[in-house]
Order: sequence, then structure tokens, then C-alpha cells
Amino acid sequence: MARAPEDGSGAPIAIIAGGGQVPVHLARSMADRGLSFVVVMLKGDADPALAAYDHIAVNPVELARFKRFMLDRGVRTVTLVGSVRGRPDIGRFRPDWTTLRFIGRIVGALGRGDDALLRAVVRMMEDGGLTVVGAHELEPDLVAPAGLLGSVAVPRGQRASIDTGVAAATTLGALDAGQAVVVVGRRVVALEGAEGTDAMIERVAQLRAIGRLGRKKGGVLVKLRKPGQDIRVDMPTIGPQTVRNAAAAGLSGIAVHGENTLVMDRAATVEAADRAGLFLVGLTPDPVALIAGEGPG
Amino acid sequence: MARAPEDGSGAPIAIIAGGGQVPVHLARSMADRGLSFVVVMLKGDADPALAAYDHIAVNPVELARFKRFMLDRGVRTVTLVGSVRGRPDIGRFRPDWTTLRFIGRIVGALGRGDDALLRAVVRMMEDGGLTVVGAHELEPDLVAPAGLLGSVAVPRGQRASIDTGVAAATTLGALDAGQAVVVVGRRVVALEGAEGTDAMIERVAQLRAIGRLGRKKGGVLVKLRKPGQDIRVDMPTIGPQTVRNAAAAGLSGIAVHGENTLVMDRAATVEAADRAGLFLVGLTPDPVALIAGEGPG
Repeated sequence: MARAPEDGSGAPIAIIAGGGQVPVHLARSMADRGLSFVVVMLKGDADPALAAYDHIAVNPVELARFKRFMLDRGVRTVTLVGSVRGRPDIGRFRPDWTTLRFIGRIVGALGRGDDALLRAVVRMMEDGGLTVVGAHELEPDLVAPAGLLGSVAVPRGQRASIDTGVAAATTLGALDAGQAVVVVGRRVVALEGAEGTDAMIERVAQLRAIGRLGRKKGGVLVKLRKPGQDIRVDMPTIGPQTVRNAAAAGLSGIAVHGENTLVMDRAATVEAADRAGLFLVGLTPDPVALIAGEGPG
Repeated sequence: MARAPEDGSGAPIAIIAGGGQVPVHLARSMADRGLSFVVVMLKGDADPALAAYDHIAVNPVELARFKRFMLDRGVRTVTLVGSVRGRPDIGRFRPDWTTLRFIGRIVGALGRGDDALLRAVVRMMEDGGLTVVGAHELEPDLVAPAGLLGSVAVPRGQRASIDTGVAAATTLGALDAGQAVVVVGRRVVALEGAEGTDAMIERVAQLRAIGRLGRKKGGVLVKLRKPGQDIRVDMPTIGPQTVRNAAAAGLSGIAVHGENTLVMDRAATVEAADRAGLFLVGLTPDPVALIAGEGPG
């Protein structure tokens, strides 16, 4: 757990917000609990709803503006949440002097995977004296526990698919390519690259529609933390849309990395899974395995 | 090399033809050389042009018809070429007795990867007294050598991408998921699953168009034999369309597994690469590495 929210210093925590609904949920929850925070909205990514809070909107390379805002507000703790879809097109920026000091490190990381890029950003912030905490430390309810989340049990016949998926996702993660795979039977039919989890699941729906998967129903989405992934800044995430996509692709369920996965709007996510008849299970955090929620089917 | 085409027995070789142009090229080449052959066209997959030769059209599970045809023609050697897109929907078939003897083995393999399925098919044919040879043994010109195929050298800056791609494709192949990956810089941006290589490259083109790859140009398609893959029946394949797709996705070139990859219509493939300014290189067969065709860029 982070000490920051409870340390009594009164200094606001900065939510550095990429795209998607996680930053919005986090801000709303922190506001509800009366916690002090400010929002750094990443231009082109952050949800406009975040402008309702004390905020600044910056380009990822406008480090001088970012730094000034942090100093002005007395921020000492930051959390990075949400997706950064586009990668900054370095050629279009006129970076400031603060940025230039770090630009080599960032550019070096850009050519590699997401982890390398985020590690460079985190190191830069820590060099600047900031403490980086994970959204799950600020809002534990955002995290999937190990065990069954909804009311649909894992059919016995899907256990081998989950095992295959865990092996494949672990291998994929070691390449720093993606976090998720879809397994039908014992066959890995889709692996996530730069397209992201949603686009990968849609591909499975298309393959199924044209008869390329052999079976008309079934299959599992397995989404895991990558071995080198810093969950303070980049946690695997699912939400109601993930469940709806999985149902549309004819999958039987979703297995995520217990205690290592953000669930956006858990009530809506679980309800969507229950309604669609999909199981939703958190695997043991380490080593990753199915421990709970097994059913007779 | 297969002994069959040169053994003087005069017995025809059976080309068991799935989809795509490889079976067509192979049949044309064998006809040009006056070799004796028959074609087993897999219904729904084989190119209709193959009906110009002595042939039978069968469903993959009509083993009794297949067996009778083989006995009638005195076939002792078979080659399996071309893609089998759809997986047989077992429920729709009324299999014959010969098929039923093997159906358990096939169904068991269907849930796993392509390799498992093909291994079961090959074992079945060998059990039936047939010799299975690779298309590359019948037509060595179909195979990519190690070294540069076209006239565009491998830019120095793409070597790290190829290395990353070799590591990723090897890992992917060990999962029996797919054969190909696309690497931009040192980032694995796409991995082939059940969608196949062409659909994966199209995905890269789309990601590039919406700015998700960071770099406007560059990247490498790496396509390798899977570690467990029996190249007698399932060789990685590229052709002119692969080159056109790679060019449309803004890639710099294609690296394939030397001596382990079919190149359909090599003249047209090389010409397409040269015209698009793409390098086309065969890596060393084992261990896989770049040995030739390196340029100054």
C-alpha cells in the first residue's frame, strides 16, 4: 500500500491520465473519499470528463510544463493510469529544455516494447523526486482478486484451455508484445500485439464467423501481467466492454491475473459476465494457476 | 530428395491439394517435366484449375474414396500442399468405415494446433503404406535458399529487427500458434494466430494508418518454420501477394527461413520485392540467423 494517501501531508496526488475509463473511475472514487488529487491529462488520450477536476492538459513531451504544475501544486506522489494509444511523433514536437535532457532515453525506449518505454518514464519521474504508486494502491477495489468474480463457474472442459492460455500469455509477455491470448480447445488462435485486447477479440469473432476456428462455441480469453511489467504504471485491464466482446466472439469465459489486473467498474463487468453466461476468474497471482471457481461442466 | 520421382516405377505421385497457388505451381512444373502424377483436390480448398489433371475431389474425411483412388492409380507416394482454411465440421459428415477407424485420432488432434492435426494425418497415411514427401523434394525451385533473393540489400538498421523477429517467431512457433511476426524497431507489433500471415500484415497496415506504430515506415516480416513443423506437409509459404501486403504495410522487407520456406512463383515474388524496394532474404536454416544480403543502410 502507498503511504501517500494516508500520510496526512495533505499534498495532492497527481493522476497522470491516459485514455479509457480507469482514470475517470479512479478520480471519481478519490473524490468520493475526499482525497486530495490533481489530474495531468495527456492530450489526445485523456477523457474530457477529467477536466472537471483541478487539472493540466499536456503533451507527453512538454516536461517543463508538467514539472511546473507539479511544483505549483506541491505534488510528491503520482500514479499513471489509462492507455496511451498513439506514440508521440517526436518529429512534430518542439520540446523544451527539461524534455531535451531526457529525450535520448525516451527515444531509445520508443523502439522497444511498452515496458521499456514506461520504465524510462518512471525512472525519469523518480529522478525528479516523485514517488510513483499504482492505481491499485490508491483504490484496491479496482483490482481483480484470485477466485471467481461472477456467478458462472469455470466448466471443467475449459481448464485445459486456461492452462494453455497461461503458458502462451506468459511466453507472449516475455516478448513484451502483448498481455492476452485466446485459446479454443488447446489451440492458441490469437495473440495480442500492438492492436490491443479488444481488437484481438474482435478478430476471433471474425475468424469464428467464417468457420476458421472449427468449434462454433467456446474458448477462453487469458490476460496476464507481463513478466517485466511494472504494475504501478501499467496493469492489465478489463471492463464491461471486454466481457461484451468476449461474448460476441463466442467465448466461454475470461481468466485474468489475480491481484494483478484492473477491473474497470467491477459491478458492471461482473453483471455483464453473468448476463452473458461467461465465467470471470482471477488466477492465482504467482505462479499463475486456476485455483477457484471450478465447476462441474 | 524423394526417390519416388526418379525411381523409374512409373507409379504416379499424388498431390493432395489444399488451397492457394502452391499446388497449381507444383502440378504445372511436374507436368512440364513429364512426371506422372494425380491430384486429390480437397473440396472447398483446392483451386479449380487442378481439375485439368487426373484428379479426384474429396472431403477430408472421405477416407474410403481417397483410399480407393490411391489403389486404383497405384499411388505409393503422396505430397500434401496448400492451405486447409476451414477445419472439417465433424458433425456434418457421415464418415465411412475407413474414416471411423481413424476419426478418434483426428478429432483428438483438432483441438490442438495445426502441427498436431497434420502429424495425425501423416501418421494415418504412413499406416496405410504411403510414403509422404515434401513439395520441396519434388520441386526444389519452390524453396527459398539462404541468402538474398532480390536485389535490395538488408539495411544495417533492420538487422536488430530481424533478430527480434527470429526470437519472437521461434517462441510463437513453439506454441504451435503461427509462423510469422512483424517487428518495428525492436518492438514485436503483430503475431500470427489462426488468421494467417496475410491478415496479420493487413492488421499492421491498419495500425500504421492510425498512428499506433510510432514510425511511419519500416519494419520486418519474419516467417519461420515452427520447431515441431513437418516441412514435408506444411512449409511456411510466401508469394507475390505477401510482398505486396508487406509493401502496403510500409515494411522494409521480409526475412524467411532459408531452405524451409516455399516461395510461390519465385520470379514474380522477387520482381514484386525489387519493384517495391523491399529486401527479401533467406536466413540460415539452423540456427536461424542473418548471413547474407546485408547492406550499408
